[in-house]
Amino acid sequence: MSARRIPAALVEARRANLRAALDRAGFDGVLTLSAANVDYASGYRSVAAVVHGTSPLAALVTGDRLIVAGPVSDSAPAFDFGLEPDDYLAYGRFFFESEGGLAAPTRLVDQHADYASAIAAAVARVPAGSRLAIDDAACPEPLRRRLGELLPATEFVDASGWLAEVRAVKLEGEVELLERSARIVEHAMLTAIDEAAIGMTEADIARIVTRELVAADFDPRFTVVTAGERSALADAFATDRVVREGDLVRFDIGGMYQGYWADLGRTAVAGEPTARQASFYRAILAGEEAQFELAKPGVPAEEIFRRAIEVTEAEGLPAPYRRQHCGHGIGLEVYEAPIIRPDAPTPLVPGMTFCFETPYYELGWGGMMVEDALVVTETGIRLLSDRRRELQVISA
Amino acid sequence: MSARRIPAALVEARRANLRAALDRAGFDGVLTLSAANVDYASGYRSVAAVVHGTSPLAALVTGDRLIVAGPVSDSAPAFDFGLEPDDYLAYGRFFFESEGGLAAPTRLVDQHADYASAIAAAVARVPAGSRLAIDDAACPEPLRRRLGELLPATEFVDASGWLAEVRAVKLEGEVELLERSARIVEHAMLTAIDEAAIGMTEADIARIVTRELVAADFDPRFTVVTAGERSALADAFATDRVVREGDLVRFDIGGMYQGYWADLGRTAVAGEPTARQASFYRAILAGEEAQFELAKPGVPAEEIFRRAIEVTEAEGLPAPYRRQHCGHGIGLEVYEAPIIRPDAPTPLVPGMTFCFETPYYELGWGGMMVEDALVVTETGIRLLSDRRRELQVISA
Repeated sequence: MSARRIPAALVEARRANLRAALDRAGFDGVLTLSAANVDYASGYRSVAAVVHGTSPLAALVTGDRLIVAGPVSDSAPAFDFGLEPDDYLAYGRFFFESEGGLAAPTRLVDQHADYASAIAAAVARVPAGSRLAIDDAACPEPLRRRLGELLPATEFVDASGWLAEVRAVKLEGEVELLERSARIVEHAMLTAIDEAAIGMTEADIARIVTRELVAADFDPRFTVVTAGERSALADAFATDRVVREGDLVRFDIGGMYQGYWADLGRTAVAGEPTARQASFYRAILAGEEAQFELAKPGVPAEEIFRRAIEVTEAEGLPAPYRRQHCGHGIGLEVYEAPIIRPDAPTPLVPGMTFCFETPYYELGWGGMMVEDALVVTETGIRLLSDRRRELQVISA
Repeated sequence: MSARRIPAALVEARRANLRAALDRAGFDGVLTLSAANVDYASGYRSVAAVVHGTSPLAALVTGDRLIVAGPVSDSAPAFDFGLEPDDYLAYGRFFFESEGGLAAPTRLVDQHADYASAIAAAVARVPAGSRLAIDDAACPEPLRRRLGELLPATEFVDASGWLAEVRAVKLEGEVELLERSARIVEHAMLTAIDEAAIGMTEADIARIVTRELVAADFDPRFTVVTAGERSALADAFATDRVVREGDLVRFDIGGMYQGYWADLGRTAVAGEPTARQASFYRAILAGEEAQFELAKPGVPAEEIFRRAIEVTEAEGLPAPYRRQHCGHGIGLEVYEAPIIRPDAPTPLVPGMTFCFETPYYELGWGGMMVEDALVVTETGIRLLSDRRRELQVISA
């Protein structure tokens, strides 16, 4: 992302939510390691992590403290963001100067040798015997082993799934950012469809999408614009293939706004759709809409998957319509639990946010999709994207 | 990136280069795991990897074969790119359909259970007793253990450093893409400096940069535009801070063109520079230029580091000028070996590409930098970015 302006109130609300969940689960604190979990817990996102892929942060949240372990290079930007210098444990070497040498980051050089040592120093600040949750899924084996050696008395409980559950139910401010993220992508796709013309290349059209995305401070991550037989390739880069009369043109666009992902899809046809294109698209659209109608609190994710398959087949896509999933949770990560798949008994809960989708990829013919974002309400769902979901047309 | 158009001849040339290096090193083949190494070996980049962070590819190169292990979801786009279906070992579940079900990707569903199994199947296709290099740095312990169990007779030799050395010396086509990448960033920064004005925010200016980057099919990864006291924060996101008279405005911009990174820096002052701003900038610019003058084949990286420090101090930056490095190799990764640091005896070789930089960050006052890309020639260097390296001015 080019600019950061996540509301301070949302950062506070997320941490309060995490603390309430810690209380309910009987944990004294949680040590978060994945970039998304550290962001959720602290509000801080590292730019340097892109440059130095090996310099991660960790955030330790207890009932009354937030302690962060991270590289020296992230210290000054983290304090500027609002993190407390006394509760930042730094590792590695990077030089910030200051007149008189008084500013905190100037003193952090070589404070701790590495990530594990900084984490251990953070954990040493909470009372001995604390029961700490850890997102083990983001903890490589060598780090887990070192933490065990450095902190022999600390009990870590694997809580990756628990953290995913906490994050799955979004706060109001999160839903607002997810809707803003989705609306930016929706607008970018529809602008590209309006400006696209037969004779342009996939890359020409993809460039319109990214132009609109970055104009809204959105951070593009995948911009799949594929035409004709290439529209069947699922996740593929745009190329210089020219859009010709009769082509399907499939858009699958993803990225982040203030860390919150959008992942939406639309399909257009260049000129008049054939009967097959029109009827197949009606089927996948009906499948997506059947998901919207069924989804409400208490309904298991797997039932929504089954309904999508049934309705898409009943409305005219050749059976069997084979999918590994028909949607996924979305938030600080593009795929979050629960996934809308055949073996997911998790019931929907108000505040969960999803992308529902019923894509179809037929090699040699083409691919089509419609994918939208939504939030589960008390009685059903509210769409976070909903414009021009029918088969779109690109003209000469 | 929104569009992929890496030249097929370059992909061939890289693989030929890798094979020549295998011969010289006495390896029968190399198993590459990191995204950059898989790209170098195969030319293929996964879009799906962004969505499914846990679905990596591996590429096994021998004297006459390229065998790829990857998720089913990458199979159809990989074959469209030009990989050989018979030499793609797939894992996981994803459904491509085809009329008659004949196309290769439709048959790959559930071929192998996971990444390790697909890799093992790939390795099983090379003669028993082969001596294989592996980029161990990208191989997590559990995967390494599974590979050991699945392939008890295979000798893997850790060759992460060797692969970095092979990739450090760029082919002509790589230098062309790196120059294109650098020129795109240079143009974007200078356009933003020209359009910037006192009263605009950091985010406003960053948005101009990303607008220009994506217009050239560049993939932005960090767009650091920071003003005033924030310019001292090193890697920090742009915010809504307004640019005021007298502010330093520091640009540090990075991302990829066709997988090849650029990472450049420029500094502007809003209005007339103060004497301190002007003299400090002259010092860091002299430090960067001293590196250009010294760099040529045979000169150790550490000597270039020392010269940068000496000259920057001699030209007026307060001693000690403290830096952990004054530049780094650049290519398919943003930081590649060798790094221009105090403990790097590696001598420069024609074809190596670098970014040289002499940034200065003073908390409470500001930060400044000038960073440019270059290639080592037979007799010295050739700059891949060189426009308006002096202190720039932003006016009202």
